[in-house]
Amino acid sequence: MKSLTEYLWFETKQRRELVRVTDTVAKLVKQSGVQEGFVLVSAMHITAGVFVNDDEPGLWEDIWEWLAHLAPEKDYRHHRTGEDNGDAHLKSLLVHHQVLVPITRGALDLGPWQQIFYAEFDGQRRKRVIVKVLGD
Amino acid sequence: MKSLTEYLWFETKQRRELVRVTDTVAKLVKQSGVQEGFVLVSAMHITAGVFVNDDEPGLWEDIWEWLAHLAPEKDYRHHRTGEDNGDAHLKSLLVHHQVLVPITRGALDLGPWQQIFYAEFDGQRRKRVIVKVLGD
Amino acid sequence: MKSLTEYLWFETKQRRELVRVTDTVAKLVKQSGVQEGFVLVSAMHITAGVFVNDDEPGLWEDIWEWLAHLAPEKDYRHHRTGEDNGDAHLKSLLVHHQVLVPITRGALDLGPWQQIFYAEFDGQRRKRVIVKVLGD
Repeated sequence: MKSLTEYLWFETKQRRELVRVTDTVAKLVKQSGVQEGFVLVSAMHITAGVFVNDDEPGLWEDIWEWLAHLAPEKDYRHHRTGEDNGDAHLKSLLVHHQVLVPITRGALDLGPWQQIFYAEFDGQRRKRVIVKVLGD
Repeated sequence: MKSLTEYLWFETKQRRELVRVTDTVAKLVKQSGVQEGFVLVSAMHITAGVFVNDDEPGLWEDIWEWLAHLAPEKDYRHHRTGEDNGDAHLKSLLVHHQVLVPITRGALDLGPWQQIFYAEFDGQRRKRVIVKVLGD
Repeated sequence: MKSLTEYLWFETKQRRELVRVTDTVAKLVKQSGVQEGFVLVSAMHITAGVFVNDDEPGLWEDIWEWLAHLAPEKDYRHHRTGEDNGDAHLKSLLVHHQVLVPITRGALDLGPWQQIFYAEFDGQRRKRVIVKVLGD
């Protein structure tokens, strides 16, 4: 069995940002030499998400508006700790913090419109995503 | 390590439909010969979901009503591209597009009421799910 | 390839409860001897969730309030079967029922604030979570 582990670092300019990481993940899969396996892309923070969806700017705006509606900024109990990112924790739960992408014949086995996104919900500081490839 | 990759095709009659795929996935696991491992069931489209829940028609209606409430049909920015399925993208994010099912002693290791469902949010055309088995 | 499968049993005193399981999962990973791999932590019931988030009591209250708002107790069609836990099914869909945690150099490869939680949405009876380690 082969494996490869890499950490992607992000420091977004905006507090909330989507970053497409498909190409980076694809490169790491090539580098691993794995032909058949899985690659896990998983946020290492609890105020960020990773999801698969469409590479379409209109949709991104829709997603942000939707997230602001379902997990709004407000005065959360969590803020008693001095934090102000309660909404970011809920957004992370909502979109989930990880995806597992199948690898077939040495490449990401994604549908034609599937792109992997890192979703930053509380940025402007250094944060990490683990990419772990496992297979043969 | 053994692996098996199969693609399930769906073309639902309704725009929105739930399709139980547990038996198909179980058959593929048997076919793979994997005794201990994981099987990934993952939609290859960004307007569909895969989840594990109960095989109970009343609950399915509850789920549809709930999804219509949390990710309603409306005029999304995404529709400027000519699409009309913005809600389907959000529903996919909400229920997630994949599950990973453990395989123990050659069979799906699910709880007694756990069933795997393909959730079509924008159907009436051919769409795919990847089933990938990995293990020993 | 090595694997280890264990079932964690829960019988919470409250109907709804969060139980931190990080240490138990970490112990099982050690026991498996896996150095590079994945551990799946997955509820075997359709009225429970498993997620990764912060070990902070204020936030937990926020999460419960948020879940009560997005997937409220009410009269669901599912209740025609005699059940009264429709909300628990929806809460399970919302936070997802599983996480996959990477294992690197023999240990859980989590970020500094990431903790694994079992989320009971319909407790006061015996329920299970599968922990399955796979790797080398």
